[in-house]
Amino acid sequence: MAEDSSSEVTAREQRNAGPGRLLAFTDGVFAIIITILVLELRVPDLGSGQSLREALGDIRPTFVAFVISFLLVGMYWTWHRSAFAQVRYIDRNAVWLNLLFLLPVAVIPFAASVLGEYPTESTALHIYGVVLIVATLFRVVLDWYLRRHPGLLWQAPSREARRLGTVLAAAPAVVYGVAVAIADWAPTLSLLLYFSMPLLYFGFVALLKTDPRTQVAAEDLS
Amino acid sequence: MAEDSSSEVTAREQRNAGPGRLLAFTDGVFAIIITILVLELRVPDLGSGQSLREALGDIRPTFVAFVISFLLVGMYWTWHRSAFAQVRYIDRNAVWLNLLFLLPVAVIPFAASVLGEYPTESTALHIYGVVLIVATLFRVVLDWYLRRHPGLLWQAPSREARRLGTVLAAAPAVVYGVAVAIADWAPTLSLLLYFSMPLLYFGFVALLKTDPRTQVAAEDLS
Amino acid sequence: MAEDSSSEVTAREQRNAGPGRLLAFTDGVFAIIITILVLELRVPDLGSGQSLREALGDIRPTFVAFVISFLLVGMYWTWHRSAFAQVRYIDRNAVWLNLLFLLPVAVIPFAASVLGEYPTESTALHIYGVVLIVATLFRVVLDWYLRRHPGLLWQAPSREARRLGTVLAAAPAVVYGVAVAIADWAPTLSLLLYFSMPLLYFGFVALLKTDPRTQVAAEDLS
Amino acid sequence: MAEDSSSEVTAREQRNAGPGRLLAFTDGVFAIIITILVLELRVPDLGSGQSLREALGDIRPTFVAFVISFLLVGMYWTWHRSAFAQVRYIDRNAVWLNLLFLLPVAVIPFAASVLGEYPTESTALHIYGVVLIVATLFRVVLDWYLRRHPGLLWQAPSREARRLGTVLAAAPAVVYGVAVAIADWAPTLSLLLYFSMPLLYFGFVALLKTDPRTQVAAEDLS
Repeated sequence: MAEDSSSEVTAREQRNAGPGRLLAFTDGVFAIIITILVLELRVPDLGSGQSLREALGDIRPTFVAFVISFLLVGMYWTWHRSAFAQVRYIDRNAVWLNLLFLLPVAVIPFAASVLGEYPTESTALHIYGVVLIVATLFRVVLDWYLRRHPGLLWQAPSREARRLGTVLAAAPAVVYGVAVAIADWAPTLSLLLYFSMPLLYFGFVALLKTDPRTQVAAEDLS
Repeated sequence: MAEDSSSEVTAREQRNAGPGRLLAFTDGVFAIIITILVLELRVPDLGSGQSLREALGDIRPTFVAFVISFLLVGMYWTWHRSAFAQVRYIDRNAVWLNLLFLLPVAVIPFAASVLGEYPTESTALHIYGVVLIVATLFRVVLDWYLRRHPGLLWQAPSREARRLGTVLAAAPAVVYGVAVAIADWAPTLSLLLYFSMPLLYFGFVALLKTDPRTQVAAEDLS
Repeated sequence: MAEDSSSEVTAREQRNAGPGRLLAFTDGVFAIIITILVLELRVPDLGSGQSLREALGDIRPTFVAFVISFLLVGMYWTWHRSAFAQVRYIDRNAVWLNLLFLLPVAVIPFAASVLGEYPTESTALHIYGVVLIVATLFRVVLDWYLRRHPGLLWQAPSREARRLGTVLAAAPAVVYGVAVAIADWAPTLSLLLYFSMPLLYFGFVALLKTDPRTQVAAEDLS
Repeated sequence: MAEDSSSEVTAREQRNAGPGRLLAFTDGVFAIIITILVLELRVPDLGSGQSLREALGDIRPTFVAFVISFLLVGMYWTWHRSAFAQVRYIDRNAVWLNLLFLLPVAVIPFAASVLGEYPTESTALHIYGVVLIVATLFRVVLDWYLRRHPGLLWQAPSREARRLGTVLAAAPAVVYGVAVAIADWAPTLSLLLYFSMPLLYFGFVALLKTDPRTQVAAEDLS
């Protein structure tokens, strides 16, 4: 807030309005996505002679898909929070790239419900993976755009931080790609790969923190 | 924040409370509308001998309607963000005009789900168009009201900017009107017109940016 | 922000945290309530030989109930915004009175959907009215609590403003009470009374504005 | 805001970004959870010869489960608001502990709908209790984490306040545990225990306020 003259800042902030509303809107979208996931959990109708306990057992895959999706959406949100902690101004491109990023994230509850109902169907596994890959892709594009426009940031990132950031943002897509590729002949393994993603993520962040060169990036990622 | 005496500003801001809560409320409404669109995507029940892939093919129109509606709602939100970046105070008329603007926008998920289920029915095409036209109309009225009360704005807009703003805000209604008019005898063309709306919008904004006289308006529109 | 010593203010604001989160939470609840009203509008299944236009005609009462409920929830929100524009601090009683006020407001979408499906059933009319009366009642209590604790407000209201405020906040309950009372033998009239409520409200506010003594209260009400 | 040098604060706040977005996101999640509870209330289909009044009588347990769950979610939110009024900075652990706390809270609407449909089934009573116990557990962990890292707080809590805080945060789990334990052989008593929880809570807070040593903790709890 020091470099520009005060009046210039005011004029610029009036036109660009800062990231305030984009963040409020995005937090709202994330809050809704993460919460409507639970709407997939429906009170089961009891079949004849079936106990409630048995009926609830039938929706166990849906419950697991809910928990995994909750954590994955949480990962996207924590990334968004870290990334935009660096952002001072936004322009129309950033607004629309952010909306395009939210589009596949909003589809996660649908993909999760398909997976919850058909957990070993390769089609369900493909959809879940493709949605996550598209979300990751738009996340990388948004990240890349922001890092390429240091005028929008509080502090220009170093070249190294920029490269590492892109690699880290893109990394999950590789795991999802493998899960999609093996879904046809090893659906259970594919499913396990999605389910282990939050664990892989936490392990990966912990690993990065052990090396001083990647420690800061690890903080950003979380 | 300079012209008025400090105590006057405080009194006025206490009574009018600034646009803060209106924006928080509006962002919440937009976040919910854009997210519940996805609730229309439902896990299909498999018919006998039908594969999941085939069943998902059946909901493709619903998916397309979801993506288009997501982008259209996004357009309304980005417009709202730009328009209210100029707003310093609001009065009760602005509050209610804003609520009336949100009313048709809140109906978009319903109109989208009708269109997704009956994509070539002229009635579905009419409803979708009418909802968008009403939303555009209230948007124009809200825009017009704010520009007519420079005391509510940070900076009074020039006469030219005001006229251009109204034209730009009203322009989409013409496209929707054509789509409604032709729905009876050319439903596919009508559908394509809705689907091309986001592209038309981005092309139009890009066009405006090439001319220095309309460049600022293009920024406001996005 | 002038009377207290700076450190005292900080300590007090830390403990009480100001109304910030209460407002964010309340705006979120209102945004969701006003938006999920539209979920009652469902794509009709076509009966045999029935056109989409006819099927949509069947859900017209639901649509009318949606519009009325949207405006009524909007009235509660605009009241909340005006009332809390005066609030500087909140305590635990205010937090819980606010939650109790939100409870019946959250039931409005349910009451609206019952009314939309059974628009001339006296039971549906009773439920709709009782929910609105309870919401109005808690609104009066919350209003009364805040006005009774001037330490929570930016400015202590005059005795006259306090009395007028209570009367105005309670007034709609009378209309709802009449609508409930006549529901058994004149359901259509009862329905019309609910539907005319937003018009009555706007007319009433306009009336208050003509008299200088009630002008400020009219501003607060809107 | 006084101890650190100004530039250090800026750098730290950029990286940690303060609790702002976490609170916005959390308020959004709570607002949605508390509001979608009402979606469990569905307009009943009338059986042959059944009046609307009778049909609504059938969903009375669902309504009671809605009110109780609304108050319980409100209790978690008021706790969150009090706890984070002390928080100045957050780190990635706090972000993830907060997400893990929100996970079981998001399941409350599902547990409430199972309980509403099968109010005297021990399985439904078990699920409701386990969800509340897990939510309370994560709340205790989050609380414990924040109190253990005074660098994240505005003011380091006294050792006594810390211990009392943990006990108070954990206390509801005991009640829920009893309700779960007796669900098999005394389902009605178990149900009553859940239903009396809000009353127990308010009584407990009132009790704490009578003793000067626990008065401040009572304020925090509410």
